[in-house]
Amino acid sequence: MNPIIRAEIITIGDEILFGQITDTNTQWIGAELTNIGIRPVRKTSVGDLQEDIISALTEASQRADVIIVTGGLGPTKDDITKHTFCKYFGSELKINEDALALVTEFFAKRGREMTELNIQQAALPTNCTYIPNLWGTAPGMWFEKDKVIYVSLPGVPYEMKSLMEHAILPRLKDRFVANIIQHKIIRTIGIGESFLAETIEDWENALPTHIKLAYLPHFGQVKLRLTATGNNQEILDSELKHQVDKLLPLIQDFVFGYDADELESVIGRLLIERDATIGAAESCTGGFVASQLTNIPGSSRYFEGSVVSYSNTIKMNVLGVSKQTLEDFGAVSEQTAREMAEGARKVLNTTYAISTTGIAGPDGGTPEKPVGTVWIACATPTETVTQLLTLRSIRKVNIELTSSYVLNLLRKTILKTAAEKI
Amino acid sequence: MNPIIRAEIITIGDEILFGQITDTNTQWIGAELTNIGIRPVRKTSVGDLQEDIISALTEASQRADVIIVTGGLGPTKDDITKHTFCKYFGSELKINEDALALVTEFFAKRGREMTELNIQQAALPTNCTYIPNLWGTAPGMWFEKDKVIYVSLPGVPYEMKSLMEHAILPRLKDRFVANIIQHKIIRTIGIGESFLAETIEDWENALPTHIKLAYLPHFGQVKLRLTATGNNQEILDSELKHQVDKLLPLIQDFVFGYDADELESVIGRLLIERDATIGAAESCTGGFVASQLTNIPGSSRYFEGSVVSYSNTIKMNVLGVSKQTLEDFGAVSEQTAREMAEGARKVLNTTYAISTTGIAGPDGGTPEKPVGTVWIACATPTETVTQLLTLRSIRKVNIELTSSYVLNLLRKTILKTAAEKI
Repeated sequence: MNPIIRAEIITIGDEILFGQITDTNTQWIGAELTNIGIRPVRKTSVGDLQEDIISALTEASQRADVIIVTGGLGPTKDDITKHTFCKYFGSELKINEDALALVTEFFAKRGREMTELNIQQAALPTNCTYIPNLWGTAPGMWFEKDKVIYVSLPGVPYEMKSLMEHAILPRLKDRFVANIIQHKIIRTIGIGESFLAETIEDWENALPTHIKLAYLPHFGQVKLRLTATGNNQEILDSELKHQVDKLLPLIQDFVFGYDADELESVIGRLLIERDATIGAAESCTGGFVASQLTNIPGSSRYFEGSVVSYSNTIKMNVLGVSKQTLEDFGAVSEQTAREMAEGARKVLNTTYAISTTGIAGPDGGTPEKPVGTVWIACATPTETVTQLLTLRSIRKVNIELTSSYVLNLLRKTILKTAAEKI
Repeated sequence: MNPIIRAEIITIGDEILFGQITDTNTQWIGAELTNIGIRPVRKTSVGDLQEDIISALTEASQRADVIIVTGGLGPTKDDITKHTFCKYFGSELKINEDALALVTEFFAKRGREMTELNIQQAALPTNCTYIPNLWGTAPGMWFEKDKVIYVSLPGVPYEMKSLMEHAILPRLKDRFVANIIQHKIIRTIGIGESFLAETIEDWENALPTHIKLAYLPHFGQVKLRLTATGNNQEILDSELKHQVDKLLPLIQDFVFGYDADELESVIGRLLIERDATIGAAESCTGGFVASQLTNIPGSSRYFEGSVVSYSNTIKMNVLGVSKQTLEDFGAVSEQTAREMAEGARKVLNTTYAISTTGIAGPDGGTPEKPVGTVWIACATPTETVTQLLTLRSIRKVNIELTSSYVLNLLRKTILKTAAEKI
């Protein structure tokens, strides 16, 4: 086994300490470093105070091989991180011409004027390697001192992630011959974490010590993450394949994908393979299902559209749900879900159509139909499948769960029908 | 001014370091401590390793008055935190009879058998004050040494929160006559962070030293957060009001709300006040705008629906966009955006309707209409307003920015029209 490469992550910003924003960066960075075989050993958050940042850097430099710093960059933060690195390394700020050119282009493209503050963003510590940020105005920086690597990135999540993916992670991989840490993710839906754990208990207990299992539940889905550590890629791959082959028979019905697969990307592939199209009629999900489906680049190839019919009028006028049905069974009913899906399939002229109608909460519940009562449906050229959900969460979660379940209903229905585009 | 009470938060668990679970605890704890006037100065995450936990405790004890530790408790963790505190304080574990009684009752209630591991959960360091956990099996612990308070809580969020709310926060309040920290948030949209900073520079420089300003940018919006520290609630409130009154004239056009206001909740209030309704026609946002509007409980009072028209067929058949318009100007054009909004207003029968049509990316761009070219529109009973956006981000961000901007266009249009429900 190769030596362990230790990393620490430092986030800078009062807003994180005071709990005013959710820090999603450190979880992402921790997972990505683990992925390339670098082990996160500590995370630290400090405020916008030079002395606190310097003490965090000093402590981390005594423990870690790699230190990733996010935040504390940008015009209104007065780029405190940059000034602090200068003090920490005893260097000074100097305008970097490449950085200045990029910032200038950034504003030119947007037809916006550059302020003195923006120009100052191109000033970098003289001892840093400049990492261009093509997604914003705060540059990335790479320092090395006494065998420790320091990386400074902006706190804006998509800028940080883009810089990590395109520049930092590749550099770190080149630098360290770390242990190979190989992940295999099996994505399940429709089975709870504890049931899943019971179902696969024997298999889990029989895992070799260098293969670890993590349960990652998220909105009705549970990701099973296998992490194998070693120094031979091929052996790790075949060991993981062997374990997955043993696991699958136990949970076949609940597995929808692997690794980076999302429910909506899996559905996209299924539809493209069949040259089929999809549309939706959404009541309680209010557009969330369509928004999930269209998160996938190129979804216009199979996604025609969605009718978000919050009001009964629109259920009738646009989707053709019958007045009688709404009066006899109500908007939240199997019959309405069915007519919504069939109506959407007709008006959007698609191979398949899915629908949602329910009570997301917090209000609108009744003794017969409490908050969390949701009907979903999937219409195909030959039949319409419906399903009742009884959810027990807050509004936002009920909406996301409904979306997951209706997309899974669609996935299963596609798999069992040999549909052709109409 | 009272002395500042400094707190540090330490979370224990490999799963947090490796990015396998989202840590929501530290944000919540940071906000709650700030609320009672205790200032979080650092957050640290370490793995399930005794030496790492001890070094984190040792460092924190040299800086903080209060140290909140979460995680590392429970049978599957072998209660590493408890053993570590014993080593740290030089105390030992002893069964606590009250804790044992509570755990026994916990299992009796659930008709489950108690294992030896569960009994061991009632063993506590001899120098700790036992904090009963009525929501789980891992007890809370309170230690004091050399004027530093150490609190240890389970990592399960609702157990941790319940213990904090019912036992820890009240104790901390009693103990410290801490400063009051009062926040006021002013929410802006449509002005960049650096321009905002220049516009209000003089006002910002004139702020008294006990009132701090933070810029929190997020998808085209910038939150201005004022934080006032003192010991008299009324004085702080009036000082903050005074500062806001001075600030508003400078940025009136860009302010859409305060504190917990969201664009979609502000719009909801405006519509309810006017007994008006809203609908949407979405192309590039793919349902995201509707999903934002319906995130608000009770939005069914004014939100009728949205037509997500990804395909031109649906733009024509459902929204009534003319074939000629699509042929002459294309789907991404001012004319199409206008006809989509007007068509949605008609078919959904609403007071207002908004529309989005553009190229979210990554593909689909052309030299004339590059990725990020978006037209938005808002139709009212008397006119239709349009706006061109030129965005330069990744797909997901382009979608969220478009949503923010079209909702803001709606907000401004509502404010300048005295519309009545049709």
